[in-house]
Amino acid sequence: MFAEILTVGDELLTGNTVDSNSAYIAQRLTERGYWVRRKTTVGDDVGEIKTAVREILARKPEVLIISGGLGPTHDDVTMAGVAEALNRRLVLCDDCLERIKAFYEKLYREGYIDDPGLNEGRKKMAYLPEGAEPLENTEGAAPGAYIEHEGVKIFILPGMPREMKAMLENEVLSRLGERKFIQRKLLAEITDESKLAPILSDTLQRFQVRIHSSPKGFGRYIGIILFGEDEETIEKAKRFMEERGIRFEEGW
Amino acid sequence: MFAEILTVGDELLTGNTVDSNSAYIAQRLTERGYWVRRKTTVGDDVGEIKTAVREILARKPEVLIISGGLGPTHDDVTMAGVAEALNRRLVLCDDCLERIKAFYEKLYREGYIDDPGLNEGRKKMAYLPEGAEPLENTEGAAPGAYIEHEGVKIFILPGMPREMKAMLENEVLSRLGERKFIQRKLLAEITDESKLAPILSDTLQRFQVRIHSSPKGFGRYIGIILFGEDEETIEKAKRFMEERGIRFEEGW
Repeated sequence: MFAEILTVGDELLTGNTVDSNSAYIAQRLTERGYWVRRKTTVGDDVGEIKTAVREILARKPEVLIISGGLGPTHDDVTMAGVAEALNRRLVLCDDCLERIKAFYEKLYREGYIDDPGLNEGRKKMAYLPEGAEPLENTEGAAPGAYIEHEGVKIFILPGMPREMKAMLENEVLSRLGERKFIQRKLLAEITDESKLAPILSDTLQRFQVRIHSSPKGFGRYIGIILFGEDEETIEKAKRFMEERGIRFEEGW
Repeated sequence: MFAEILTVGDELLTGNTVDSNSAYIAQRLTERGYWVRRKTTVGDDVGEIKTAVREILARKPEVLIISGGLGPTHDDVTMAGVAEALNRRLVLCDDCLERIKAFYEKLYREGYIDDPGLNEGRKKMAYLPEGAEPLENTEGAAPGAYIEHEGVKIFILPGMPREMKAMLENEVLSRLGERKFIQRKLLAEITDESKLAPILSDTLQRFQVRIHSSPKGFGRYIGIILFGEDEETIEKAKRFMEERGIRFEEGW
């Protein structure tokens, strides 16, 4: 089960915004047992989005989550880029338009905006790639979209973290099945890093776990994350490694 | 002048670490007038790194900056992945080995590690793709590498932010020439977003600037970043937009 993440936004490519969205999405996918194999970031450009989506689809992930570029401004073009990548038209979603209308009327009544009308930019947000299922945005105006395309589940989410997170929780995870992965972080005290590699390989062969390691400090500690479907499997894998001479401390 | 960034690390793909490195690198490149067109993240896997590097080189950026995966542990394989992508061997850099030795001897004298010796993991860090120029790591053990390959300037930097930043400042930016871009952040008050697009297009045609926009709040404000080579150009572009009816506030 492998997944990819595509984040869209010029502000990510100028470094004005740190891409915390993709880390959040990656974490939730990993918990569900998905292996996120690659993350890509492109700017607000129809051609760049189209190219990146096609490249990702060619790698045949089970899931592709796209975040960013759904708003009302001229450079919010993600739906158009995805539609082009899939050779689909953008079509008006009537329900979406109703919701967008209601959203701006509410903002108007509450005094946030001067004009509740549906100008071009606001109306644009109601256009989704043909055949897409709209995903409800409980925190903002722009709906998301869910598209199954040649075996790939594609989810298109907003870039505003609050909107993205709510849509991911409410609309995406429920469509990804029930399997869950848990993780446990350990600190391995080890004075020779080269002894660790064969022990990790053995563990991976014997147990249904995934292991990530990264150095903490200079050589004395290695941070280990054990991923598995339940506590018991993780505990067994941990004990196996301890029997081979690794000393663990919990957490880091 | 376009650039790409590749970050390497399993921890980025599980969401355990937010990729702040690529934002930092993007910011420094943008200030130098580079247009970062794409960011990619892959895991600690020779095959994945090789594939990603080849794809990036095929797009012919002027600069490719790679960060992560240079350490002593078994899953630090970035140099091997890049070497494979470029069809080069990994060769021992004698100077690098001397520095690494001195680094661990210092840590030993200061009581951070029990064994100052050069085990396999530590020695591995002295192997760079053939023809690469080593980049000094003032903050850690692993040297970086600079390679010119078919017109692309490739820089390979560590993943630890402190080490990456020092190497970027000391070893990379000096190799990228002197041109500088500055940026100015403005808030545009606008009640109809659709009026903004043609004004931005006109501005881009007349002035040597780049413009990024993103919504701030719901519809009343648009955040604008103006990039240009000097204050005067930016000021002129700003005035041009004001004459066409945009009201600006400074900063956001």
